[in-house]
Amino acid sequence: MSYSGTVVVGGGVIGLSIAWRLAADTPVTLLDPAPARGASWVAGGMLAPVTESWPGEEDLLELGCASLDRWPDYAADLGVELRTDGTVVAALDAADAAQLDILADHLASLGRAVDRLAGRDLRQREPAIGPSVRSGLFVPGDLAVDNRELLRHLMDAAARAGVTFDRRRATLVHPGEVELADGSGIRSGTTVIAAGAWSGGLHPALDRLVRPVKGEILRLRARPGVLAPRHTVRALVESRPVYLVPRAGDELVLGATQYEAGFDTEVTVGGVRDLLADAERVVPGIAEYGLTETAAGLRAGSRDNLPLLGMLEPGVLVAAGHHRNGLLLAPITADAVRAMVAGEDPPAEVLAADPARHVPTRR
Amino acid sequence: MSYSGTVVVGGGVIGLSIAWRLAADTPVTLLDPAPARGASWVAGGMLAPVTESWPGEEDLLELGCASLDRWPDYAADLGVELRTDGTVVAALDAADAAQLDILADHLASLGRAVDRLAGRDLRQREPAIGPSVRSGLFVPGDLAVDNRELLRHLMDAAARAGVTFDRRRATLVHPGEVELADGSGIRSGTTVIAAGAWSGGLHPALDRLVRPVKGEILRLRARPGVLAPRHTVRALVESRPVYLVPRAGDELVLGATQYEAGFDTEVTVGGVRDLLADAERVVPGIAEYGLTETAAGLRAGSRDNLPLLGMLEPGVLVAAGHHRNGLLLAPITADAVRAMVAGEDPPAEVLAADPARHVPTRR
Repeated sequence: MSYSGTVVVGGGVIGLSIAWRLAADTPVTLLDPAPARGASWVAGGMLAPVTESWPGEEDLLELGCASLDRWPDYAADLGVELRTDGTVVAALDAADAAQLDILADHLASLGRAVDRLAGRDLRQREPAIGPSVRSGLFVPGDLAVDNRELLRHLMDAAARAGVTFDRRRATLVHPGEVELADGSGIRSGTTVIAAGAWSGGLHPALDRLVRPVKGEILRLRARPGVLAPRHTVRALVESRPVYLVPRAGDELVLGATQYEAGFDTEVTVGGVRDLLADAERVVPGIAEYGLTETAAGLRAGSRDNLPLLGMLEPGVLVAAGHHRNGLLLAPITADAVRAMVAGEDPPAEVLAADPARHVPTRR
Repeated sequence: MSYSGTVVVGGGVIGLSIAWRLAADTPVTLLDPAPARGASWVAGGMLAPVTESWPGEEDLLELGCASLDRWPDYAADLGVELRTDGTVVAALDAADAAQLDILADHLASLGRAVDRLAGRDLRQREPAIGPSVRSGLFVPGDLAVDNRELLRHLMDAAARAGVTFDRRRATLVHPGEVELADGSGIRSGTTVIAAGAWSGGLHPALDRLVRPVKGEILRLRARPGVLAPRHTVRALVESRPVYLVPRAGDELVLGATQYEAGFDTEVTVGGVRDLLADAERVVPGIAEYGLTETAAGLRAGSRDNLPLLGMLEPGVLVAAGHHRNGLLLAPITADAVRAMVAGEDPPAEVLAADPARHVPTRR
């Protein structure tokens, strides 16, 4: 029994975006026991290639900016709202300020100037910032999206586009067939491995290339009369990164610790303690917020922070290892996979993400 | 239409215990839109009249000890397990240690000697205690119970005893009738107001006598390889009380902030931050615990920390205002109400809790 359709393994923001876009060209089955959950469900929703960038990661910055350019159309197609207020980046101590200087210099050298601001000027732009903040940056181009609203819209759009949701769990991908946990298998013309942190176990070539990186987030809700930030606020607090992303309805998503702890998704006392303490130094008003949710997710870390995006062998593609950038990179990842499945050239910016940089691939 | 049965308003640990015991003598209807929830659901489960006692609250200590004596039979009747490892009380700074000295002297003056221990000796008894603890007490007689297991067993026992659960909400209690939120009413021979913090609105005599006192608790789970406390651990951390109560299955209940904040049950960032920081100074290992739940409940505070337990007018009794001692006082409260409804003398220790001390009652 031969089958010409495509099977996408994994229903996070990457798998859903791929399935939705591919369904315009070919029958698509999406395999996931719990789609729209995982790391995508606990994400902060920052679309911020510039504030996330770092010297030595220029390929990732180019890829991120190319995907950010696609975000307005992608969001409009899905009917999802974008926040466009930009990002305020705050530094607490002198070492944190020095790190932001490195970032600002690096961005300037790439022709992407950002505003450096003293603490006072930063507070003028974002009054929720507290007096302990020494200096910072303002990055106007960054976007933010409500990750859970996005997932709901992606599920709807994929279903409307004709994607078949199959709730069985994939265990191994071969050319032409996907093995399932129940011992059966399904035929596949092309298979796309988009299972995030779990991708490493699905194909021998990915073994040890993708690893789980735990991230904890908290969801807060402003109580009446409390000053709520309008911008995304990122900060370095004694070298620990923290972010606060406003949502509609007085919600605030607070992240993100990062641990290399295997497939562990339990929220720890120490993680919550550190997140709250660090965030409160940046935005003191959160002490009065309600704490409505604690959650942990597993990002898919790669060896060089670039995703793995390309062909592993005939009939098997990978789109995983997006680490902190799954939401940001979803539009360009979906466009690239759609082009590859159709035998066309993907956007030039994704070539750096070819898995061939790490492993022998068979084309 | 006359009715000779009893209506109990409120299905927390007090209302459920009363309904269960009364059902042996008379038909009982229990009114509560959500029984087995509220403050009883988020309680720590300490049965600790001695460690809770304080000079000037001798009546409460007598009442608590009399109820503690009834706990083993009450638990056996319900099939609930008790923890009998006792309580370790820890003091962090010199002022905290001085407070414990006052408590120990007070207990000694009442003939209830407790062991005073240096930090080292306290850690020998409870190895989970950290090095910042300066001194403490060991109180062997205190018990602890899993409040949620208790509520499940109370619900079952009440149902088996023939209690009728009515999910409508009571709004006002008159002699012979209870008004409901849907505009209707039900007849009642005797009505027992046992609605915790909500009791104040149910009868004019209780107005302003019972007030909500918010308490936040966290539920933690020990991860493999982490040292878990065996005893209930209470502490004063720079005068802030904190407790950690072990449960079966590596669970630990951590409390308790106290706020006078009206009928607000949102868990706040500041409350969680303070609880975690204080608890970690007492039991450092909890940083490695999982944080599985945050919750807030409303205890029913009274003016003098004694409950209100007795007749308000013919056909109307109150059993509310138990504040931090609802679980502890459930057995004696149920026995007292059962005696009063039968026209018998209640246990002598409950006389101090007669609401007549605050309000004119009509007998």
